[in-house]
Amino acid sequence: MSAADLLPVEPLSKSAFAPFGEVIAAQSAAQTLAMNAGSAQRYANLAQIDCAAGGGRAVIGIVRAQPNAMPIPLRLLERHPLGTQAFVPLSDAPYVVVVATAATATPRAFLVGDGQGISFNRGTWHHPLLGLEREADFLVIDRVGPGNNCEEAALTQRWLIDLRS
Amino acid sequence: MSAADLLPVEPLSKSAFAPFGEVIAAQSAAQTLAMNAGSAQRYANLAQIDCAAGGGRAVIGIVRAQPNAMPIPLRLLERHPLGTQAFVPLSDAPYVVVVATAATATPRAFLVGDGQGISFNRGTWHHPLLGLEREADFLVIDRVGPGNNCEEAALTQRWLIDLRS
Repeated sequence: MSAADLLPVEPLSKSAFAPFGEVIAAQSAAQTLAMNAGSAQRYANLAQIDCAAGGGRAVIGIVRAQPNAMPIPLRLLERHPLGTQAFVPLSDAPYVVVVATAATATPRAFLVGDGQGISFNRGTWHHPLLGLEREADFLVIDRVGPGNNCEEAALTQRWLIDLRS
Repeated sequence: MSAADLLPVEPLSKSAFAPFGEVIAAQSAAQTLAMNAGSAQRYANLAQIDCAAGGGRAVIGIVRAQPNAMPIPLRLLERHPLGTQAFVPLSDAPYVVVVATAATATPRAFLVGDGQGISFNRGTWHHPLLGLEREADFLVIDRVGPGNNCEEAALTQRWLIDLRS
């Protein structure tokens, strides 16, 4: 294996992330509805939950992620063939999401901030969530149920994330 | 109708809220799992998503709620017979949840803070979310699909929430 290469970190946008999943943020909404007699606005249908395959169901949990010091070596990719998986930060702590179109493809890294969440499409290869700066809680909405819903793949190249540069 | 009565506001707890739904908070977890090679903790299975009835599916949205000035008159109750509905604050803004075992029962009000979320069980009568102090965003996870998933009922008595007292 060669020396590690720096993986560029892109800003998150709905269009750039579309091949991998959905962006959960009010400003991403295609549809905004008044509700509760005008006392609230609903930014509707930001992300689809697709967890019923193989007798599964969706549940809500919380993940508390530790920060990562720079540079961050990428470790592996994983995917969930039976369901979507959404992460929504419960604070304004930024984090990095790494995704790939195939386990052997060059991954893409996105910097997520401003309270934005993301949902990985079923089967999308991704790195485990990368917290930055401080411990942070995320709401996670994903599948429980029978069957193997987590596949892992080694990276075919060494990659580093470094936001100091 | 008689003069309005003050509805007492209780602190939220998992046991007090159990007849109406689930509390979404790390400290409510019955199960905590290490994940991602120890770099994260998962507070698992905090709330069940039950939105498949009648050909429905679950989606993720955001609701931006306006604050309410004290005293807050309760307006009506509603329920969603076909699915659970979860609200998780995306800030630390406190809010009030009002629920009832029946449309004609005396409602119960809970003060929710510290970033806690709640999920209403299918068919649980509740008041539209009551924001306090300032505009606040909530992640909402509920059902879309065919059929009537929102029933409303007038309150049989006038109630006020007043947190100044």
